[in-house]
Amino acid sequence: MNDKIIYFDNAATTQMKEEVLEEMLPFLKEKYGNASTIYSLGRESKKYIEEAREKIANSIFAKSKEIFFTGSGTESDNWAIKGIAYANKNKGNHIITTSIEHHAVLNTCQELEKNGFEVTYLPVNENGLITKEQVKNAIKPNTILISIMFANNEIGTIQPINEIGKIARENKIFFHTDAVQAMGNIPINVNEMSIDLLSMSAHKFYGPKGIGALYIRTGIKISSFIQGGAQERGKRAGTENTANIVGFGKAIELATLNIEQNNKKLLDLRDRTIEEITKKIPFIKLNGDRQKRLPGNVNISFEFIEGESILLMLDMKGIAASSGSACTSGSLDPSHVLLEIGLPHEIAHGSLRITFGNNNTHEEVDYLMDVLPDIVAKLREMSPLYENVKKEKRYV
Amino acid sequence: MNDKIIYFDNAATTQMKEEVLEEMLPFLKEKYGNASTIYSLGRESKKYIEEAREKIANSIFAKSKEIFFTGSGTESDNWAIKGIAYANKNKGNHIITTSIEHHAVLNTCQELEKNGFEVTYLPVNENGLITKEQVKNAIKPNTILISIMFANNEIGTIQPINEIGKIARENKIFFHTDAVQAMGNIPINVNEMSIDLLSMSAHKFYGPKGIGALYIRTGIKISSFIQGGAQERGKRAGTENTANIVGFGKAIELATLNIEQNNKKLLDLRDRTIEEITKKIPFIKLNGDRQKRLPGNVNISFEFIEGESILLMLDMKGIAASSGSACTSGSLDPSHVLLEIGLPHEIAHGSLRITFGNNNTHEEVDYLMDVLPDIVAKLREMSPLYENVKKEKRYV
Repeated sequence: MNDKIIYFDNAATTQMKEEVLEEMLPFLKEKYGNASTIYSLGRESKKYIEEAREKIANSIFAKSKEIFFTGSGTESDNWAIKGIAYANKNKGNHIITTSIEHHAVLNTCQELEKNGFEVTYLPVNENGLITKEQVKNAIKPNTILISIMFANNEIGTIQPINEIGKIARENKIFFHTDAVQAMGNIPINVNEMSIDLLSMSAHKFYGPKGIGALYIRTGIKISSFIQGGAQERGKRAGTENTANIVGFGKAIELATLNIEQNNKKLLDLRDRTIEEITKKIPFIKLNGDRQKRLPGNVNISFEFIEGESILLMLDMKGIAASSGSACTSGSLDPSHVLLEIGLPHEIAHGSLRITFGNNNTHEEVDYLMDVLPDIVAKLREMSPLYENVKKEKRYV
Repeated sequence: MNDKIIYFDNAATTQMKEEVLEEMLPFLKEKYGNASTIYSLGRESKKYIEEAREKIANSIFAKSKEIFFTGSGTESDNWAIKGIAYANKNKGNHIITTSIEHHAVLNTCQELEKNGFEVTYLPVNENGLITKEQVKNAIKPNTILISIMFANNEIGTIQPINEIGKIARENKIFFHTDAVQAMGNIPINVNEMSIDLLSMSAHKFYGPKGIGALYIRTGIKISSFIQGGAQERGKRAGTENTANIVGFGKAIELATLNIEQNNKKLLDLRDRTIEEITKKIPFIKLNGDRQKRLPGNVNISFEFIEGESILLMLDMKGIAASSGSACTSGSLDPSHVLLEIGLPHEIAHGSLRITFGNNNTHEEVDYLMDVLPDIVAKLREMSPLYENVKKEKRYV
């Protein structure tokens, strides 16, 4: 089984579906027209872009004209938060978010703090959850935006979006959600959930990299983030990336169509993995909520060892997994999410994230369970901390 | 010849080369790893991204670590100008640019004007040129940035970048150039030209859409524009678009390799077209400088008619051309560039831009010259203004 990569990092990115590439290829070849031109080659690009826009809108129960393409989920987050902040600063300068957002939200909020805005970072409980009461209590007369992620990229925790949306609506505060991890995995209805702005990224659900979108509810006052040409109805400049937009449309169409079936499959793989690891490996902790979590997410801390060492040894066995977010791999700091749910530094360092996708199988989980206990045992043998534990006979 | 599209709008976008797609395909299929992960699938993506970065750096005589990938040329322009402005506002708040920049620069500058910055928009002469004296005279003690495009996207005029760079350097002012149209068409050397920041976009030289880059000279103080993960050495967040980055690298490698040969071809097509139109059609004006212009650019105004009507009739004959920038096609305003070089509104409305690419042939120009004079004559027959001219026997 070692000749093929076993890919357990679907939260970092996914392998594009063949059907998606198939739909993109004509736009990488003969249908290359700039969608903002008026001759037939350009109008054709435009037509397919609008079809994709409609598919995306349909998948979250929005209108086509409420979907704006961006270069990534990160750009969508930057746009949503900065765009609302600067366009509505006459109304107030306070933003509510959580302490476990993706850095695309956190670092954007920190940037705004340097520029006269005030941000409340709601703490989460030991499972990574916030409550509607916390949100309610954080609202001040100058609050203009609540930005809370739909589901966490590291520990998979799903926030009570419905309830938060309701509170935001009642208080006439704009509600943005970073749904980069949720989109395609969890059914989303922007109306029922009272969502005003929603960030998404195609490569998280078997679409291409380098294309995102922002849902902006009609009537929301937001400034543009990238200025230039008149693309995206004057709201987001830059030549339309037709191929990737078309791929995005196809990917979300497929994800929406198969969402129930895929969920069932992912839940099965997830729960089985959690049970097996819990059963076979001592001194571990499941991070995130046991129930309110993304169907494909497993995040487990192993005491006495470093996550990166597990990853490298898994890699040698042909398994690709993660110790947290791929986006912060340049940094040696432990995950801010794990620290926020109360893990001490040394344990936060020893975490493993396994995120399943549509292509994973039971056999792959079996293989993981063949190799992981040995890897953990071997690494622990090298750990002086573990030596002490053994001496104290804490070993279960 | 009518069954195949004759594509004369290479300044809007180009058809991707087969060799470029070939290099991209593995990254749209099996090599899908997130480049910021540490397992082999991710490290492989990273490796190819760094190879592409080096090719791009080599093409402009920069260092690899001075190239930062973005989602588009427009994003590069936004980043360069806002990034320099906000990071250096303690030194000054004055920016010098020209009145014929792309809207990615103009609208960004206007945004900065709303936020406490002061911008000088240098007027151009009747050919679209500015002089080094103009730049010199515009410099004030609070000038922090000079942003002047390398070559104009509508009329093809090439600015005296060498001289402007020298002035900027002498005065210790950062120099940014929007080289989106020049890159791949004109040899660029950021050292000889004293360029500090340079915007580029792959789809303008037979690479993919949705990928750009910004060259940032080492040591330049610039704030980040898109905040989030630690990608691009913490300067530009968002999952790396590996396939498009690899395509970008291949495209600039091919363009650099063939630049002389392609230039010769484009110059030949351009000059022949200008001569033929001048000879065969009365009441026309070549817009832009006859010599200092992009090798593939023809921009001609036809009195008494509207550019859009010419385009639609050319489209019916299978020819794709433009009346100016594709990026502003949503707007009914005449081109700001043509107005700035002194054309009256009614003539600015009647312009045609033909931009040649590597795939164009003499036969295609012959076909254009077969149909264009008739189209112009027919449209003029419908014009009341032209009626008056005929009565006055102004007809040549």
